[in-house]
Amino acid sequence: MAGKGLIVSVSGPSGVGKGTILEAIRKRYPECKQSISVTTRAPRGTEQDGVEYYFRTREQFEQLLADGEILEYDEYVGNYYGTPLTPLIKATEAGDDILLDITIAGTLALEEKYPLAISIFILPPSFEQLAERLKGRGTETDELIKMRMEKAKEEILSAKKFDYVVVNDNLEEAVDNIVAIMKAERCRYERNEGIEKTL
Amino acid sequence: MAGKGLIVSVSGPSGVGKGTILEAIRKRYPECKQSISVTTRAPRGTEQDGVEYYFRTREQFEQLLADGEILEYDEYVGNYYGTPLTPLIKATEAGDDILLDITIAGTLALEEKYPLAISIFILPPSFEQLAERLKGRGTETDELIKMRMEKAKEEILSAKKFDYVVVNDNLEEAVDNIVAIMKAERCRYERNEGIEKTL
Repeated sequence: MAGKGLIVSVSGPSGVGKGTILEAIRKRYPECKQSISVTTRAPRGTEQDGVEYYFRTREQFEQLLADGEILEYDEYVGNYYGTPLTPLIKATEAGDDILLDITIAGTLALEEKYPLAISIFILPPSFEQLAERLKGRGTETDELIKMRMEKAKEEILSAKKFDYVVVNDNLEEAVDNIVAIMKAERCRYERNEGIEKTL
Repeated sequence: MAGKGLIVSVSGPSGVGKGTILEAIRKRYPECKQSISVTTRAPRGTEQDGVEYYFRTREQFEQLLADGEILEYDEYVGNYYGTPLTPLIKATEAGDDILLDITIAGTLALEEKYPLAISIFILPPSFEQLAERLKGRGTETDELIKMRMEKAKEEILSAKKFDYVVVNDNLEEAVDNIVAIMKAERCRYERNEGIEKTL
């Protein structure tokens, strides 16, 4: 079936296992692309514009921000790093699927600007299990874990703004669900508008 | 993930291979239920109300029709046969998934009354292939095939009112797509409303 590529954003609270899920999806589906960030830092070595990053001046970046072109951004050691929208849409028009690893706020900005984007929220099976996972890392103080849990509880309330919720009870099952969501979304009539007239 | 069962309706034009697809899905997913029709004919042998059919009087059936309770119906040898809505919704509330084999008009009536229903339209890869399949049956005259093709062309325009379109180019692929649609739909936030508050 013909049709444009998909933009899929997978988000969730800290500690929910999003990184492991994304890694498993990329392994199962290696042709899925990632987004390329735009940055104000200078290219290093053999880095090329549009490959590792889009390299822009500070003024250009601020213009992109003003144009609502940046879904989310951060400043790190004096340089901006952001996720631009237009290259994602262009990639899907060329038929590519994009799997995004962005924040909850970034996903909500994406949905607002491009409602065909697919937003998936990963939920922990329970708060207890989320706390266990945060403790399991073994690198954080009790105080920090408590703060993260408070933050996670707040973040989880955003689930209702997402298209899909996937409970990360079992890694294989969570990945199966996300792969099924991508397969199903390709069949949605709105992604195949007018197909009945092309037979 | 907790949640209600699904009502899935698979429709398409005559000759598209819907029967074979439904059979394959039922084989792969035997716990999926079918709808039970309501009829005005008398029970035979060991037939029980609510098992083979819901047995109703003509007056009761006409009341169900007047109440908008019948998605589609037909009259055969002086008796009504119809697909009632409420038992489907009750079954999904008990957690059952229902796979419906109803007409295009019946599916559109279902979507209107119960928007959470999942409507899938099966498309042929091309009109030529649809004509070939109709001829392939070998039981129909050229005139009848021509009439069926005209009807199919008209029916196919309804695809735009469906949630999903699945091209029946390859049986396995079409079935995979429908199974993925069911899996994905179980993850839609609207089917899991409030889940973020239950953790």
